[in-house]
Amino acid sequence: MRDLPINADRLAASLDELGTIGRDHRDGSINRICVTPVERQAHDMMATWMTAVGLRVTRDAFGNTIGTRPGRGAGGSIAIGSHLDSVPRGGNYDGAAGVVGALEVVRALDDADVRTEHDLTLVCFSAEEGARFGKPCLGSKAAVEGLGDDELALSDRDGVSLRDALAAVGMRPLETTRPAPWTRDVAAFLELHIEQGRVLQEAGEDVGVVDCIAGNRRLRMRLRGQTDHSGATPMRLRRDALVAAAEVVVAVHRLVRRAEDLVGTVGELTVHPGAMTAVPGRVDLGVDVRGTDARVQERTIQQVIEAARAACRDHDVELEVDDVSDVPPVELSPWLRDVVAGAARRVTGRARVLTSGAGHDAGVTARRIPTSVIFIPCRDGVSHSPAEWAAPEHLATGTQVLAQAVLDVDAQATTAAAVRSREQS
Amino acid sequence: MRDLPINADRLAASLDELGTIGRDHRDGSINRICVTPVERQAHDMMATWMTAVGLRVTRDAFGNTIGTRPGRGAGGSIAIGSHLDSVPRGGNYDGAAGVVGALEVVRALDDADVRTEHDLTLVCFSAEEGARFGKPCLGSKAAVEGLGDDELALSDRDGVSLRDALAAVGMRPLETTRPAPWTRDVAAFLELHIEQGRVLQEAGEDVGVVDCIAGNRRLRMRLRGQTDHSGATPMRLRRDALVAAAEVVVAVHRLVRRAEDLVGTVGELTVHPGAMTAVPGRVDLGVDVRGTDARVQERTIQQVIEAARAACRDHDVELEVDDVSDVPPVELSPWLRDVVAGAARRVTGRARVLTSGAGHDAGVTARRIPTSVIFIPCRDGVSHSPAEWAAPEHLATGTQVLAQAVLDVDAQATTAAAVRSREQS
Repeated sequence: MRDLPINADRLAASLDELGTIGRDHRDGSINRICVTPVERQAHDMMATWMTAVGLRVTRDAFGNTIGTRPGRGAGGSIAIGSHLDSVPRGGNYDGAAGVVGALEVVRALDDADVRTEHDLTLVCFSAEEGARFGKPCLGSKAAVEGLGDDELALSDRDGVSLRDALAAVGMRPLETTRPAPWTRDVAAFLELHIEQGRVLQEAGEDVGVVDCIAGNRRLRMRLRGQTDHSGATPMRLRRDALVAAAEVVVAVHRLVRRAEDLVGTVGELTVHPGAMTAVPGRVDLGVDVRGTDARVQERTIQQVIEAARAACRDHDVELEVDDVSDVPPVELSPWLRDVVAGAARRVTGRARVLTSGAGHDAGVTARRIPTSVIFIPCRDGVSHSPAEWAAPEHLATGTQVLAQAVLDVDAQATTAAAVRSREQS
Repeated sequence: MRDLPINADRLAASLDELGTIGRDHRDGSINRICVTPVERQAHDMMATWMTAVGLRVTRDAFGNTIGTRPGRGAGGSIAIGSHLDSVPRGGNYDGAAGVVGALEVVRALDDADVRTEHDLTLVCFSAEEGARFGKPCLGSKAAVEGLGDDELALSDRDGVSLRDALAAVGMRPLETTRPAPWTRDVAAFLELHIEQGRVLQEAGEDVGVVDCIAGNRRLRMRLRGQTDHSGATPMRLRRDALVAAAEVVVAVHRLVRRAEDLVGTVGELTVHPGAMTAVPGRVDLGVDVRGTDARVQERTIQQVIEAARAACRDHDVELEVDDVSDVPPVELSPWLRDVVAGAARRVTGRARVLTSGAGHDAGVTARRIPTSVIFIPCRDGVSHSPAEWAAPEHLATGTQVLAQAVLDVDAQATTAAAVRSREQS
């Protein structure tokens, strides 16, 4: 069978058009913060496009948008897609590339007049980024496993809970505690995504197949000292929350560098009251530690907490620590990895396998559904930034591999139950 | 002559009413950020009250509000007052106590039917706090000396310049480069203010007389690294602006503690983009160092800049440093200090003389006009915080001392020119 006719121009044009939603024209950044009206606009645009190519479009209780292209009736569906939300001041490829790539697969199947055996399900996840609520992949978690009450109670920096935010954009938070019905029959999930690192670029590869997604441990810390006048308060009487917080930032950097295959970041830090003439009385910060070894990840996060306690003791500052995320590293489906590697070899002649340092919805779906991730390089590994960029030819190649993998899975998979039992054997 | 009949209840009631402007009812904080419509409301309330007690009310080009109570015609005027703006999440005493205290002096003079020899000028300064534009005492500087173009070009964190902010609230920024005409004939300026420290409270004093105002050196630093994905960017490839900034915060704390009579603070620090999953690409921060010895102050600020350069080098981060304030320590008028100390002894039997660690408009007026500051204690030295509080009896006592000092200066001062020449002899 010949390759599906992926249309690189159509793909790039759709990505451009999607990128008008949430774009800040001052710096070109994308600002589609999860569970907001702006993110919903992106879902609505995708729903319109999916309807136009004949998919049956629904959205689940969390607001993930799903479009189904019926197959010939083999049980089980093959799901493809990614997420539509972005970090604040993010780029137009993270998530969006995989959603638009999946749409192009559907269009190419139509162009080639190919009907698959299995239903094909195009998935646009919501809330993959943890920026707003401090925890990533909430949309895929809701769909695949259901959310816990603790997750619905997570709040953003304005004190708005996920539950209230969902209700405010018209979703049904009460129903998100049970898995979404559409996930029940999914036999395989394939996600196309930019690498967000430099491994493929440095190796000169056009595409990669992910074997493992690094885990992450995230903490929110609140340091409470005392707000005082910066001129009239002698140093010995101060309880400066920012000095303690700065020691935490330095400690995170020092501790993660001691371990191999580990990264650690304080990406979020706010100072209250935040004035030149006031000793900071409170600092809120977020710590993100990621690795491929769960034990190293956990040991390091405990060392970070110890260092924070010591810094706060030294400066007479109170410390509250909340665990906001504890995701172990995830091994992806070996069966699908081999299918996707075969597709990559067919399309590019090569199949580079690598680990993902970034988390993905695929890391959540993999707990229930055989899952694979196809990476394409992005320039200099830059992501979560308006400078994020992937070459149109890499986007087209990744989409071609995704399309080929869909056909190859379709030729193999029978029902979701059969695939899952094969996976477990 | 008997003491002027200061009315403590009226004083407290006016302070309460003024405190309704800019109050956040969630935490009781005052938020009268300078050169905003909210600050103007406070000026309008004071103008209404001053008009009601028969003062001739004007405002100068910067927006300082001035009310004149004519004297019998001796040349020169005696000015009393303080500022109406606050820091973000500030208290209701910093500045407001001195403005309302000055109003009470006028009311008490009316009640006692006292006409002074000299004009009495009630001054409500704008923009004493440096929180918005990074430089304090802009209103008093405009009035007494005129602003420089560099000062009018200062901008807030939204990029709004002082010049534009003044125009937006209806002021005349072009005219602020020349001293305001009303300051020409001022022979003495007396400011009542809360101490914002713990010296008076610890000594059990009801009132204090300030002999010197500590200087301050302020810097704004902008650290530019590279925004990257927090999961997919290995530590060795990062250019994390927050890690470098944290080292600056720690260095400020360490360096100022080495010197005596010095305080240093990073009160303002913002992280861009500010997401859990993004390596910070940019951090803006403000450094405030204050002391009574100009050389120690300057030496320490240079050490801070050196430490920041080293931290930025280590993390491959670019550093921009802007000087936003360089105010040397100010010795106040010895003549007025003695007059005020005499008034304090008459009212309280004692006269504690102390240094001000905080800056005040008085530190600016003192460069042109004989100036004195009367301090009252505030609870635990807490200021720039909603917990800021001064006892009503201390407020009344301080106001009584201010009133007595006005009468004593009135009995001595002749014209502004004569006072200034006496001061210089």
